[in-house]
Amino acid sequence: METESFYGVTLSEKEPIAQFDVPEIPEEYIVHSHKLIIKQISLGHEAKTGEFNVVQAETNAINEGEKKTVKIPIAVLKVGETRCLKPNVEFPNGSVTFKLIQGSGPVYVCGKAEMNFGEFDDGDGQMYEDYSDEEEEEEYDEVPQTNGKSNKKK
Amino acid sequence: METESFYGVTLSEKEPIAQFDVPEIPEEYIVHSHKLIIKQISLGHEAKTGEFNVVQAETNAINEGEKKTVKIPIAVLKVGETRCLKPNVEFPNGSVTFKLIQGSGPVYVCGKAEMNFGEFDDGDGQMYEDYSDEEEEEEYDEVPQTNGKSNKKK
Amino acid sequence: METESFYGVTLSEKEPIAQFDVPEIPEEYIVHSHKLIIKQISLGHEAKTGEFNVVQAETNAINEGEKKTVKIPIAVLKVGETRCLKPNVEFPNGSVTFKLIQGSGPVYVCGKAEMNFGEFDDGDGQMYEDYSDEEEEEEYDEVPQTNGKSNKKK
Amino acid sequence: METESFYGVTLSEKEPIAQFDVPEIPEEYIVHSHKLIIKQISLGHEAKTGEFNVVQAETNAINEGEKKTVKIPIAVLKVGETRCLKPNVEFPNGSVTFKLIQGSGPVYVCGKAEMNFGEFDDGDGQMYEDYSDEEEEEEYDEVPQTNGKSNKKK
Amino acid sequence: METESFYGVTLSEKEPIAQFDVPEIPEEYIVHSHKLIIKQISLGHEAKTGEFNVVQAETNAINEGEKKTVKIPIAVLKVGETRCLKPNVEFPNGSVTFKLIQGSGPVYVCGKAEMNFGEFDDGDGQMYEDYSDEEEEEEYDEVPQTNGKSNKKK
Repeated sequence: METESFYGVTLSEKEPIAQFDVPEIPEEYIVHSHKLIIKQISLGHEAKTGEFNVVQAETNAINEGEKKTVKIPIAVLKVGETRCLKPNVEFPNGSVTFKLIQGSGPVYVCGKAEMNFGEFDDGDGQMYEDYSDEEEEEEYDEVPQTNGKSNKKK
Repeated sequence: METESFYGVTLSEKEPIAQFDVPEIPEEYIVHSHKLIIKQISLGHEAKTGEFNVVQAETNAINEGEKKTVKIPIAVLKVGETRCLKPNVEFPNGSVTFKLIQGSGPVYVCGKAEMNFGEFDDGDGQMYEDYSDEEEEEEYDEVPQTNGKSNKKK
Repeated sequence: METESFYGVTLSEKEPIAQFDVPEIPEEYIVHSHKLIIKQISLGHEAKTGEFNVVQAETNAINEGEKKTVKIPIAVLKVGETRCLKPNVEFPNGSVTFKLIQGSGPVYVCGKAEMNFGEFDDGDGQMYEDYSDEEEEEEYDEVPQTNGKSNKKK
Repeated sequence: METESFYGVTLSEKEPIAQFDVPEIPEEYIVHSHKLIIKQISLGHEAKTGEFNVVQAETNAINEGEKKTVKIPIAVLKVGETRCLKPNVEFPNGSVTFKLIQGSGPVYVCGKAEMNFGEFDDGDGQMYEDYSDEEEEEEYDEVPQTNGKSNKKK
Repeated sequence: METESFYGVTLSEKEPIAQFDVPEIPEEYIVHSHKLIIKQISLGHEAKTGEFNVVQAETNAINEGEKKTVKIPIAVLKVGETRCLKPNVEFPNGSVTFKLIQGSGPVYVCGKAEMNFGEFDDGDGQMYEDYSDEEEEEEYDEVPQTNGKSNKKK
């Protein structure tokens, strides 16, 4: 069972944070893969000339054998220099928080959310075992995408 | 059964809207996947210098567990600054409306429409069941692509 | 049987047109997929400063349920502004004509031609049936690629 | 068993080197494929105007039948000219060292690490034999990613 | 059996040519696919301002039913205008020669070499028959990559 969704959020001074999480999946399912791909980050036409707008991603990465939180800017934008970037970065670890750490925006973040999951893997080595029926597909077709001042961080 | 088609529409002051819909598929088919990928958005050579041309996409995205309509600019263009973008955004949810919300164009929107469908899934968990024959392939080979003043919105 | 080929043509004032066609395939074969992908369009170093060079694609697209011919610029180039574009557009419908409708070039159009075909599909629903042997692979390994003043249009 | 991870390191005058290695895999596993893909390299907003920042990659490549170490710049950045690049280069040979050989940064290197491995191949020609269970997946889910002054080179 | 390798060569006035060839494969193998993908071509920071640097590719393409040699520039670079391109062109025909036909460089050409081959196809229509064992994989793991004044052309 694979679901895809367009992902689009607007970051600004008022709403500088967008959180992307893996939805809660019932126990009997295992997530085979889940990722968010950021295709394009661009400044609105009303962004201020000469002002830097910096979008930071905060996510888990594995570093020297341990899971660590990484914070790294994925877009440094400035009208008159760089209005639009196509980072094409992928967040396969489930959760990521985007934060406008500098500038007043608006900044448009566009991409794609993909999720591939199936029924419980009983550990016998056969991973893509059972695909669920139509009904279940409807039920868990949800890719949470929060934008706002919630300030949730992982 | 997979079909692909080049997608190309021109947006301008006179025809600022292009609507892309999933075609009507007879009941006995299910659409396994259907998407529109926007590869390039560019200004014509006759576009006015210094004028912003902004293309907005309106589509469904899933947000906090509910389907919501998202409106987000996917191209902010300006002669002398940004003539061409390659957003590479995908609209896997079937329908999307592009609207030139600022500027007089012309703006060329190019991409690819993909559709993958098969015969009715009886719910027994086997999704890529029967591929139809040649004749049927001809019959439903249609990717609707409307450009104009129709102002249809979803 | 899948074949791939580099595609490269030069458009200029003298040779403004490049035609790309699906080769003739013997009856007993069916083409599963065939496409031309345009990866990069760039101006030569000798192109005139400030002159627009516009490359138009003419191909079939499906529009409101009917096959229609679409003509759309896929590259608007100008020395001092935009020397090179990477449209990444795909023409899965077999035939496309590129025309330098403005400017004197030279314009380099680079990409890839892909063709995937097999023996006759008898309609029993099994599409990727028989792959042919080596000899046949040699025989139909041809991707036609005409560049010049032939003015053939489809 | 396939694992993917976001890869993100910051290079600067103080920490000019980032080393990426294949983790140690127990003997009974074979690595089917392992690679690091660099999607984007960009200058921080605080980078000095007019200063070149050059990121060099050092890795193994096969040259005239022998494995050789290749050192090649993969990003030449300069505020006011090139703030961001999307090299999209892949390092499928396991190990690579990134070094800021010129400039003071900060330079953000973003990408993706992929690893695909399975149990021991007994040489009978069946390569993607056994996928391990969940537990083992946890255990070797590690993509080492060292950033700093360690000066390890291969 | 699939092998991948990073590809990286530096072109300059002194070493203006880089040749890429398919390695010699023993008779009992057939090459299913082999290609070189050029991901990025960029000028070194020491390149001269205002000087054009033009990289030409020379390879086989099929044109009007015949194999022909095509010579086409794939990168027109100039400090102050275009320092870096990401052509993403593919050379699936085995051999290609890159030549710096204008400018003094240095020009960095980065990409990926892919080769997919297996044991002899006896013509019975089953193409991806036997994958060889580990030992053989070592033996033919070679992607030739010559850079220099050898002036070999195909």
